[in-house]
Amino acid sequence: MLPKIGQTPYHFLFMAEKLTKRSEDYSRWYNDIVTRADLAENSGVRGCMVIKPYGFAIWEKVQQELDKKFKATGHQNAYFPLFIPKSYFSKEASHVDGFAKECAVVTHYRLKNTADGKGIEVDENARLEEELVVRPTSETIIWDTFKKWIQSYRDLPLKINQWANVVRWEMRTRLFLRTAEFLWQEGHTAHATREEAVEETELILDLYADFVENFMAIPVIKGVKSENERFAGALETYCIEALMQDGKALQAGTSHFLGQNFAKAFDVKYASKEGKEELVWASSWGVSTRLMGALVMTHSDDNGLVLPPNLAPYQVVIVPIYRSEEQFKQVEAKATELKMQLEYAGVSVHFDDRDTHKPGWKFAEYELKGVPLRIALGPRDIENGTVELARRDTLSKSIAQQEGLVQQVKETLDDIQNTLFKKAKRYRDENTREANSWEEFKTLVGQGGFVSAHWDGTVETEEKIKNETKATLRCIPLNSKQEEGQCIYSGSPSRQRVLFAKAY
Amino acid sequence: MLPKIGQTPYHFLFMAEKLTKRSEDYSRWYNDIVTRADLAENSGVRGCMVIKPYGFAIWEKVQQELDKKFKATGHQNAYFPLFIPKSYFSKEASHVDGFAKECAVVTHYRLKNTADGKGIEVDENARLEEELVVRPTSETIIWDTFKKWIQSYRDLPLKINQWANVVRWEMRTRLFLRTAEFLWQEGHTAHATREEAVEETELILDLYADFVENFMAIPVIKGVKSENERFAGALETYCIEALMQDGKALQAGTSHFLGQNFAKAFDVKYASKEGKEELVWASSWGVSTRLMGALVMTHSDDNGLVLPPNLAPYQVVIVPIYRSEEQFKQVEAKATELKMQLEYAGVSVHFDDRDTHKPGWKFAEYELKGVPLRIALGPRDIENGTVELARRDTLSKSIAQQEGLVQQVKETLDDIQNTLFKKAKRYRDENTREANSWEEFKTLVGQGGFVSAHWDGTVETEEKIKNETKATLRCIPLNSKQEEGQCIYSGSPSRQRVLFAKAY
Repeated sequence: MLPKIGQTPYHFLFMAEKLTKRSEDYSRWYNDIVTRADLAENSGVRGCMVIKPYGFAIWEKVQQELDKKFKATGHQNAYFPLFIPKSYFSKEASHVDGFAKECAVVTHYRLKNTADGKGIEVDENARLEEELVVRPTSETIIWDTFKKWIQSYRDLPLKINQWANVVRWEMRTRLFLRTAEFLWQEGHTAHATREEAVEETELILDLYADFVENFMAIPVIKGVKSENERFAGALETYCIEALMQDGKALQAGTSHFLGQNFAKAFDVKYASKEGKEELVWASSWGVSTRLMGALVMTHSDDNGLVLPPNLAPYQVVIVPIYRSEEQFKQVEAKATELKMQLEYAGVSVHFDDRDTHKPGWKFAEYELKGVPLRIALGPRDIENGTVELARRDTLSKSIAQQEGLVQQVKETLDDIQNTLFKKAKRYRDENTREANSWEEFKTLVGQGGFVSAHWDGTVETEEKIKNETKATLRCIPLNSKQEEGQCIYSGSPSRQRVLFAKAY
Repeated sequence: MLPKIGQTPYHFLFMAEKLTKRSEDYSRWYNDIVTRADLAENSGVRGCMVIKPYGFAIWEKVQQELDKKFKATGHQNAYFPLFIPKSYFSKEASHVDGFAKECAVVTHYRLKNTADGKGIEVDENARLEEELVVRPTSETIIWDTFKKWIQSYRDLPLKINQWANVVRWEMRTRLFLRTAEFLWQEGHTAHATREEAVEETELILDLYADFVENFMAIPVIKGVKSENERFAGALETYCIEALMQDGKALQAGTSHFLGQNFAKAFDVKYASKEGKEELVWASSWGVSTRLMGALVMTHSDDNGLVLPPNLAPYQVVIVPIYRSEEQFKQVEAKATELKMQLEYAGVSVHFDDRDTHKPGWKFAEYELKGVPLRIALGPRDIENGTVELARRDTLSKSIAQQEGLVQQVKETLDDIQNTLFKKAKRYRDENTREANSWEEFKTLVGQGGFVSAHWDGTVETEEKIKNETKATLRCIPLNSKQEEGQCIYSGSPSRQRVLFAKAY
């Protein structure tokens, strides 16, 4: 069964509160949508969220599609321990600084009753010899395992993916965007040559971009990170960057070329065809429940969530309109028939036959929850052989014939999927501007959006720009044109524009 | 892509070591199969395992089938925090004793560099105000959330499932059977009435039994636990019990009727239709990666893993036999054709065309990995329009015509699935014996298997039996016949036999 979309707690029936508007308070608007559309909510545990059934059903669609793509490109799923011994982090010098600091540390393995018998407390006799870190990312534990799995060139490439929860102790958290615990997939691969590892890193970047653009309808820029923003332990970090409706950028996925850093740290070597011992080459890559935040902030509006049909738990909702029991029977019979026809054609449909709520209330509910297409069906429609269609993306209504409805619904859903992408892309393109001087740069950063500018390639300049404008270097776009220019900050020569923005 | 079944690390090619036989050392046999068939291995973290790709592909099949069944019966997936504040456990009095003791406790949220700069250590300035427990089970955090979700009878029933990792600090661990971290699903439901909650608890018990018997081919006894063996916080624990090949029982799944205990502890009430405030009723239930252990120990033999076709990552492997490149080409063409035909019919097939391994080596490899059906194809088969079929379950070989092969393969796979179940059921039935005196009981417990005996219903007797024989009361079978009898230990009157066994 699909999630019970209508199962909003009863007390909300009496909460006619309007959603916050984007123009009033963007951040509150985001939070309103996430909580009111039943995607997620804060838990009693600091920084940890509860992903609610409706939100989780969307995440499951993300998972299923990505998992299919990973398997189609030769990756296998596996599962590695949640805990990583503290000492593992020290093995890769740059990795430890990036990851082993703000993390959840397990120090004891037992609680006991307090002396007064009223509560429980840590049993100091049960202190671990070595503390365990709750994984913030799994390179170290996985490379410790890869050492056992890789001996010969015949064991390569090794292409592993894991769906898991990870924990990073964030001080300021926001639902989906930045939470102490989040869900993700992390891919970890080992290869015989540098070229193969780079190829894998790029293949995944393309896979992510394809998925996020064509499945989630979120346009992205593919690029590489500056040295400063690289993953701790990587030689190169590839990324996809999206632009949210408030003009801030959001990193939607990363794919790292790790070189031989982890192979060295964990001594993972293979015997080549020629019998020589060689260090292996590596990649790692991941996307997380953060994508849910990107989804909300790319498409939604002041009426609530807007979902691309690919990700909607229900693509269509049918709301019956009736005044009498007799009318209801007629409408119900037709609605059930249409639902069956649509489902047979692969469209997911919810028929909301509750008599506890008025049609108007239901319309607002499904608008809030982002159901792509609403069908209203009343006695007059039965007479005329019609239905009323309402698109969530454009909020436009039209009358459609019941005959040929399946085809029309399918075409409309495709059109919604495409329209959402085009709209988001237009917004992104309109909010990507070139700056050719420091003054212009500051002005444009102030306006929001991506600012494309020349940069001298130094960490120093990048840091100064960040300190003075709060804009970070989002990426050095791939395949962008080479042009001579001068760094907008230092004036030093540059060969390519890079993208700056304020970011999540 | 399905897991690369042939990807045994190269060094194993030189390890012609035989598997331990069950008769030599059952426990080592089990461990040999789990590790050599690439299901799982120990990690560098005490008590935590790595689930390898081949093992994880089997677990994914378990997950998919169960998830389908949960959704078909009206359950929705969600996700709750990994961490549970210590104080939550104290809210349900019996639950805290059962679960909050042997667990992983997070006390700090930061590590820092050691003074000598060579390592990292816990930052004592980053101590949590309240310790967090890594969830051993999620009743407390979920009921803390349910309080927000439930106000009215309209919010009920609430039927939630979560796929998650949990941690219980076990002192003695064994791959899949008892690990500090394991994967599972946990269902948590809330209902308006006692009857509905009991109905749900029983529905899930039936769902589990149906799944384990008909999908995993493992026969189970449905029953309820004695008070002593009940889940901490439950009024009744239902269970399914299976019998392993060494005569020890294994609890394969549990479904708990929680009464109003958690509703009371977390103050979860609903307004009834009549407007009265009522406490809600609850169930919780789960199965875990422990099922993987049951799978291995139910079907496997001295040659390795035996998989029911429903759970096999590959149901069929095709091994080419050839001496020349020309012969290989012929065989390859036919094998590819057969593979396509089989896959079109929904059978998963691996064609092992590696030239680095001899057919005999491959045969042993796929026997070890439990592939249900092996097809060998050589030049003579090409001439005669035949193939050689070898069944993993019976180790029998036969010649089959290429024409009509798809049908024969499908029938054979069905037969393997059924035969495995029947064989396991026969073993279970043959090893379930009635004891009518204390002497007889002790003798039968010594032989292994289930011992069906009268019991006086007291915890005291149960404990004494356990201390004297190591046999535990596995369950009070459902729907078993009522008969007058005397407790084999105390001689007190009893109305029904119960099942005892030594157990995992």
